Amino acid sequence: MNTIGIGLLGAGTVGGTLIHRLVTEHAAIAAKTGLDLQIRRVAVRDPSKPRTFDIPEGLLTTEPAEMITDPEVDLVVEVMGGQDPAGDLVLQALQAGKPVVTANKELIAARGAQLIAAAEESGVALLFEAAVGGGIPIIRPLSETLAGERLTRVMGIVNGTTNYILTRMSEEGTAYADALAQAQDLGYAEPDPTADVEGADAAAKAAILASLAFGTWVGLDHVPHSGISEITAADIRYARDLGYAIKLLGIAEDTPAGVSARVHPVLLPLEHPLSAIRGATNAIFIEGPAIDTLLFAGPGAGGDPTATAVLGDVIDAAREILAGAQVAPRIRFSEAALADFGGVPTKWYVRLEVDDRPGVLAQIAAAFGEANVSIKSVWQEGTDDEATLLIVTHRAPEDAQQDALAAVKHLDCVNAVAAAIRVESEEL
Amino acid sequence: MNTIGIGLLGAGTVGGTLIHRLVTEHAAIAAKTGLDLQIRRVAVRDPSKPRTFDIPEGLLTTEPAEMITDPEVDLVVEVMGGQDPAGDLVLQALQAGKPVVTANKELIAARGAQLIAAAEESGVALLFEAAVGGGIPIIRPLSETLAGERLTRVMGIVNGTTNYILTRMSEEGTAYADALAQAQDLGYAEPDPTADVEGADAAAKAAILASLAFGTWVGLDHVPHSGISEITAADIRYARDLGYAIKLLGIAEDTPAGVSARVHPVLLPLEHPLSAIRGATNAIFIEGPAIDTLLFAGPGAGGDPTATAVLGDVIDAAREILAGAQVAPRIRFSEAALADFGGVPTKWYVRLEVDDRPGVLAQIAAAFGEANVSIKSVWQEGTDDEATLLIVTHRAPEDAQQDALAAVKHLDCVNAVAAAIRVESEEL
Repeated sequence: MNTIGIGLLGAGTVGGTLIHRLVTEHAAIAAKTGLDLQIRRVAVRDPSKPRTFDIPEGLLTTEPAEMITDPEVDLVVEVMGGQDPAGDLVLQALQAGKPVVTANKELIAARGAQLIAAAEESGVALLFEAAVGGGIPIIRPLSETLAGERLTRVMGIVNGTTNYILTRMSEEGTAYADALAQAQDLGYAEPDPTADVEGADAAAKAAILASLAFGTWVGLDHVPHSGISEITAADIRYARDLGYAIKLLGIAEDTPAGVSARVHPVLLPLEHPLSAIRGATNAIFIEGPAIDTLLFAGPGAGGDPTATAVLGDVIDAAREILAGAQVAPRIRFSEAALADFGGVPTKWYVRLEVDDRPGVLAQIAAAFGEANVSIKSVWQEGTDDEATLLIVTHRAPEDAQQDALAAVKHLDCVNAVAAAIRVESEEL
Repeated sequence: MNTIGIGLLGAGTVGGTLIHRLVTEHAAIAAKTGLDLQIRRVAVRDPSKPRTFDIPEGLLTTEPAEMITDPEVDLVVEVMGGQDPAGDLVLQALQAGKPVVTANKELIAARGAQLIAAAEESGVALLFEAAVGGGIPIIRPLSETLAGERLTRVMGIVNGTTNYILTRMSEEGTAYADALAQAQDLGYAEPDPTADVEGADAAAKAAILASLAFGTWVGLDHVPHSGISEITAADIRYARDLGYAIKLLGIAEDTPAGVSARVHPVLLPLEHPLSAIRGATNAIFIEGPAIDTLLFAGPGAGGDPTATAVLGDVIDAAREILAGAQVAPRIRFSEAALADFGGVPTKWYVRLEVDDRPGVLAQIAAAFGEANVSIKSVWQEGTDDEATLLIVTHRAPEDAQQDALAAVKHLDCVNAVAAAIRVESEEL
């Protein structure tokens, strides 16, 4: 039997589920893979902390660095989360020649380039299938199956919390604050929901997707992000009338201005497959000239699905250990031009509160025109002497769109830019 | 640079596209993977055959066996299709210690166990991502990412031709024969469409999906299949009224009676993600206790998507060659009980033409009851002295359902069993 000793960094929700699965499914995994996976050590900060699952006797340690160098540990699984101390521990393990499996999106987005280089240096694997899309197999398809495809765009619903909130707002007309409170009650949102609702969580995932899709490392500081806290139920209704859903997307795109990774709410055509993704489900939509479009959908978070993804990586890394060879990285990253977001073509939906009198539309159209943004469609709804104008633009560089918005905002006839949300569509 | 010599068996649609991609994308692939992929030989039956693509000078050969042993060929790609001579050539290559990438579902379904054993014996890879779902990454997720999950069911729209036909019938009320003719006009269906419309093509894919999902080799002779040639536009309408779509599915299921793989048309709830898959698109829906549900959708056929999948496998196999180690198989197959289909719980939609007089429903219900099949719902539509009865049963073993159908057919009050189609739903 091919025995592989596993050292775990962390024993939270994912770690606990993984321990449970490694113990209870040991025979089934051995039958299916030929691997005898043994947990050797579990490094935690506080061994006396009450846990909802059993950890086999004698495995707990508070010395992660010692665990890493333990010759009985062949493979390190990092499920503690956060950058510190996870990052240095993962680096130590790789430098000690041990393959690492991690579910840590924040760490990979922040230090992926350094860690991948360390893995390559030691000839061991660094696998992170669980870092994006939880239980959805997406890292491996992107970095292996699609390695020979020139992808053009990857768009993903990669944060379940915000998709849950937007679904409630869309299906029940719930206000943002109420939908957020419901998400918190159900445990979908943290007491401090900032990282989810303002897009930082999705930005880390978008950085990873862009890096793998385009083979160039995209740092987190190159991923502009905004969230959903200013989306209103009114805009969701207006968008639907125009034929769109509103979704928070992580977008990785090969643009004329270079590789762009970003996170922001978008209006997406109702018939787009991502528009149908409801609740906390995640989904990733991939476009390329040969594969046309691919959709992957499934549970984006949770201990069970994430543990399945981690376990798949563990099995893969274990196979490579037994093969006994130096492991070459799946993808080699080269320097490619990263887009300045200002130069990336975007398209906008703008809701304006304007005076309802002759000449107003002409002034507004002129302001867009002067910024070199052309208008695709206008829809007007009058109420006494004020009117609501819904404008959808054609694609133009983000900077031009921002100039147009700024100019419109200062027009006397415009009482408010009530909403401004980007639009994504089939046309690139 | 890490040079890998490739020998191609076959230069049809997929082979030609692959050659084109390997030539035109050589630099991009090298940048992204560090691999210098070189086509050394292309074995074809008739080198003088006109082709729609260029094959670089001097590569064509009519001696596949010689090509396989050529020391310049590190890796063999089989895209000739069919079992013969592809099967023996693939076996030769594996026995000669050369990894093989194939897109050949028929070959893998028929001789997969033997070929995988030969690959293991030689310590080389046998990869077949393109054999199921064309450009959709599904083999790798099933056999690697989900290796640690106890899957319960895999259902797939794995034949684009039949899904195209059913979509036309459903959306436009087209009759089967007309929809088939349209599919033939568009090149979605062959002049002899039997393998597609009668389910044999899907059966090979279902056999492969079941084998990988459950780690036990399911031979083609254990995959009962039926097709869509008896589906009528009327049943598609009736099904929709009852809340179902009609789809041809490949099903791999872990049942109380053992592992079942099968292909047949099914009524599927309209809200099921597979019900929304339109046209020639393929999709695979995976269920398991930890991952809950996963959906993969994309182009199931065509030279371009298939070549992307083959290319992904080529890159993977090339990495393993360079690592220089013996390769262990991804999945070890063990003997598991294969279900006798008669014992597998199924659920049915039955459309009966009956006399419209008192007592008829009681007789029919008694016939189902005597066969130990309980009825979930009945819907009746009367027309003068004949009535249409739509019956949906609860789950019961297939044999019991067949007994019930046979008994009902012989009742005097039943003028015709106009349709009998299985139902799949969330409940297992």
